[in-house]
Amino acid sequence: MSNEPIALNDALASFDARWSPRIVTRVNDYDVRVAKAQGEHVWHVHEDTDEFFLVLDGELHISLREPTGERTVVLRRGSVFTVPRGIEHKPSAPSGASIMLLEPTGTSSVGDRHDEVPGHVDATTGHELDS
Amino acid sequence: MSNEPIALNDALASFDARWSPRIVTRVNDYDVRVAKAQGEHVWHVHEDTDEFFLVLDGELHISLREPTGERTVVLRRGSVFTVPRGIEHKPSAPSGASIMLLEPTGTSSVGDRHDEVPGHVDATTGHELDS
Repeated sequence: MSNEPIALNDALASFDARWSPRIVTRVNDYDVRVAKAQGEHVWHVHEDTDEFFLVLDGELHISLREPTGERTVVLRRGSVFTVPRGIEHKPSAPSGASIMLLEPTGTSSVGDRHDEVPGHVDATTGHELDS
Repeated sequence: MSNEPIALNDALASFDARWSPRIVTRVNDYDVRVAKAQGEHVWHVHEDTDEFFLVLDGELHISLREPTGERTVVLRRGSVFTVPRGIEHKPSAPSGASIMLLEPTGTSSVGDRHDEVPGHVDATTGHELDS
């Protein structure tokens, strides 16, 4: 990994794929990833880890199946949200978004349990930035 | 902690203190903190953890004492950098900056070893956002 600063815009400009996170840096045993979002991701759950979202551009929706029912939170540019471990969630970005994610290295983008993964969603533990 | 999205700009607008990080959310046993930077922080080192920086506004300099010598990296708005554990570093922001930090809960803003802490630097493990 580089030990130079990384401009997130440059990282985002280096790939086109939607819902296919790239690892920009690591912090101990965590990955900082960026991804482009467009349309719907898939309902999934991370049983053993929280998942942090920061919206860099556009607007991200995250639907949540909580014990009290289902709701959708809306994150505008510059907003953050942490999905607690064990909560089924489905991100979506009707008009597109660029996001930064934080989660333990090795965490799958579609979680430990998930609905059928559509073709436009990449099931991955994150790609290296240059690949 | 809130389980609603948090606009980082709102979080930053809720306090004035420089070099006095606020915890905006937690991710497992990590804190996501925001801080306002102006002038020089202090040389310090986190022996057991990396430290992640994202510049939200302005420009942050981070001086580093690496085995190969001393250098300063410059992070513009939208850039990220991870200071590896064990590397002495001193952030500064000659013209001011707003930053987001990620580190394990309980990590001190002045590390495990540090130069004398000047009065304008808050030695803290992070304040709650509302306090």
